[in-house]
Amino acid sequence: MDKQKIIAGMEQGDHRSLSKAITLAESSRPDKYEMALEILEHFGQVEGSFRIGITGTPGAGKSTLINVLGKELIDLNPNEKLAVLSIDPSSSVSGGSILGDKTRMADLSQRDDVFIRPTASGTYAGGLSRNTRLAMLMCEAAGFKQIIVETVGVGQGETEISQLTDMFVLLLSPGGGDELQGIKRGIVELADLLVVNKADGDSEESAKRTAKEYAMAQHLLPETDSGWKPKVLTCSALKNIRIDKLAEEILNYKKFAEGDVIKSTREAQAEFWLLKNLQAHLMKVFSSLNSEHKEQYDASALPERIALELSKKISL
Amino acid sequence: MDKQKIIAGMEQGDHRSLSKAITLAESSRPDKYEMALEILEHFGQVEGSFRIGITGTPGAGKSTLINVLGKELIDLNPNEKLAVLSIDPSSSVSGGSILGDKTRMADLSQRDDVFIRPTASGTYAGGLSRNTRLAMLMCEAAGFKQIIVETVGVGQGETEISQLTDMFVLLLSPGGGDELQGIKRGIVELADLLVVNKADGDSEESAKRTAKEYAMAQHLLPETDSGWKPKVLTCSALKNIRIDKLAEEILNYKKFAEGDVIKSTREAQAEFWLLKNLQAHLMKVFSSLNSEHKEQYDASALPERIALELSKKISL
Repeated sequence: MDKQKIIAGMEQGDHRSLSKAITLAESSRPDKYEMALEILEHFGQVEGSFRIGITGTPGAGKSTLINVLGKELIDLNPNEKLAVLSIDPSSSVSGGSILGDKTRMADLSQRDDVFIRPTASGTYAGGLSRNTRLAMLMCEAAGFKQIIVETVGVGQGETEISQLTDMFVLLLSPGGGDELQGIKRGIVELADLLVVNKADGDSEESAKRTAKEYAMAQHLLPETDSGWKPKVLTCSALKNIRIDKLAEEILNYKKFAEGDVIKSTREAQAEFWLLKNLQAHLMKVFSSLNSEHKEQYDASALPERIALELSKKISL
Repeated sequence: MDKQKIIAGMEQGDHRSLSKAITLAESSRPDKYEMALEILEHFGQVEGSFRIGITGTPGAGKSTLINVLGKELIDLNPNEKLAVLSIDPSSSVSGGSILGDKTRMADLSQRDDVFIRPTASGTYAGGLSRNTRLAMLMCEAAGFKQIIVETVGVGQGETEISQLTDMFVLLLSPGGGDELQGIKRGIVELADLLVVNKADGDSEESAKRTAKEYAMAQHLLPETDSGWKPKVLTCSALKNIRIDKLAEEILNYKKFAEGDVIKSTREAQAEFWLLKNLQAHLMKVFSSLNSEHKEQYDASALPERIALELSKKISL
C-alpha cells in the first residue's frame, strides 16, 4: 500500500483510504504498524475533537442507540463529521455483530459525514483492541471531530475505555441490580453519564425505577476528579424517545470539559498508553526468552526476584 | 548488618531482628534490597497466613479499631501471632501518626505476640509503599500468621491494597455520602467488608442510617468474582461495641476464602507485582536516559512512537 496515496485519500475525505489506514494501525506486522505511525505523524496533532465512549452489556441496545444518537449529534453540530468505532470481543463467537452493525446502524451508515468501523478485539483481553487509540487518531486525522467508541462492558480491561475517551457513557437495561451482574465492578463509578435504555411500553416504569436507584447510589459515590456530577437519564433508542435529551447532556459535558479538563485528561492518558505500550513490548521480550531462561524462575519464586533479575538484563 | 544474625533472630521471635529485615526490604540501596530478598528466600514459601487490608479516611478511627480488633483476633486464634503494618502517606506532613500509633495502639503494642510497624510511604504515590509486600512477607517468615495492613484511602494507587491482601475491609464514618468525598472512586466496590465506625452515643443513629444506605448501594453492585457477598456492619472502636461481630465476620471470610480463593488471588497478585516491579525498573532506566535522548520526544509525540523507539533499545 502506498502511504502518500492513503494520506491524499484521507485529506479528500475518502472513507476507503481511512479504512486502509486503520488496518495498518491494527496490523501486527512491524512495517505496516510503522507506516500507520508515519501517517499519523504526517497529520500531527489535531485540535477540536470530542471523544465519547459508550459501554454496556450485550443486549443493552448500544448499536440501536448509536444509530439514533449519532444522527442527533450531527444535527446539533452539522459541520462536525462523526466516526463510530465499535469493538466487539464476542464477535468471533457470535459471528453476529460485525455484520449486524451495518443493519442496526442502517440510518447512520448511509451518510457521507459518518464513518463506521466495526472491529473484533481479537485476542486482546477486554473490550478494547490495543490499537483502538490509533484507529481513533486516524479518524481525527481524516477530519472527524465527533468520535464514538463502543465497547461491551464485560471481561478484563474494559475500564481502559476511560483512558481512551473524553467522556464515558454507561448504558444500562431496566431491571436494577440483577441486570448489573454482567458489568464489571468499578465501571459504574467511572461513568460521566448513566443511561437506562428501553424506557418505553411495558418496561418504562421499570426503567424509571432503575434510574432512580442508580441516582441514589450515585449520590453515595465520591465526587469525580473534575467536579462533574454524572446524571442518570432514561431513554428509548428503539422508539427514539428522549434521545435529544441524551445528546444535550453529552454536549453539556463537552462544554464543561472543553479546555482544561480534556487537556489534562488527555495528558494523563498519554502517560497511560506510553506505559501500556512499553509493557506490551517488554512482555513480548519476556515471553521470547528461551525455555532455559524461564526455568530459572519456578512458580514459588518471588515476583520481586524475577523482576530484579530481568531488569538487570534490560539495557537501553 | 549480618544476614545470618537477622535470620537467627527472626527464627527466635526477636522483634528487633524482624524490624531490621523490614528496613532492608525498604532500602533503596541495591545491596540491602538484595539481602532482604535472600532472607525471604531462606525462609521460602510460608503457609497458613491470612492477610487483612484495612482502609479508611483520616479520622475514621483505623488505629483505634485495630487496637481492639487485633486483641479480638488473637483471642479467637491464640496461637497465631499478629503483625500490623500501618502505612501513612501523610505522616511527613502531620508528623502525627508514626508516634501516634504507639499511643493509639497502646494495648496491642505491649503484647509479645503482636508486632506493629508504622511506615511512611514517602515519595511513592498512594497508600502503599512499593515494598510493603516484602515487609508483609518478612512478618510471615518470622512466624506471624495474622497480618493487618492499614492504609489511608486517599491519593492514587491505594486500590493496590486489594492486590496485597486476602481480604479488604473499608472503614467508614457515620454521615452518608458526604463523608465519602475523601475516598477515591472505585474503592467501595473492592471491599469484602464495609464497617461504619463510631456507632455510639449521638452518632449511633447516623451510623446505622449510613450502614443501611451502603447496604442498599451494595445491592446494586455486581457480584464479586469469588461469589462472596460483602456485608455492612456498624461498630464503635472507642467503646469496644460489636468488635466481636466484626472479628467474627473477618473469620467468616477467612473460612470462605481459605484454599482455592486465596490461592488463586495470590497467584494473580504475584503477576501484578511482577509487572509492577518490572515497570518500576523500566521507568528507572527510562528516566536515566540523558537529556539528549529525551529531547527526541517532545510533548506532542505519540506515546506509541516513544514506546516503539524505546522498545527497540530494550534487550534482555
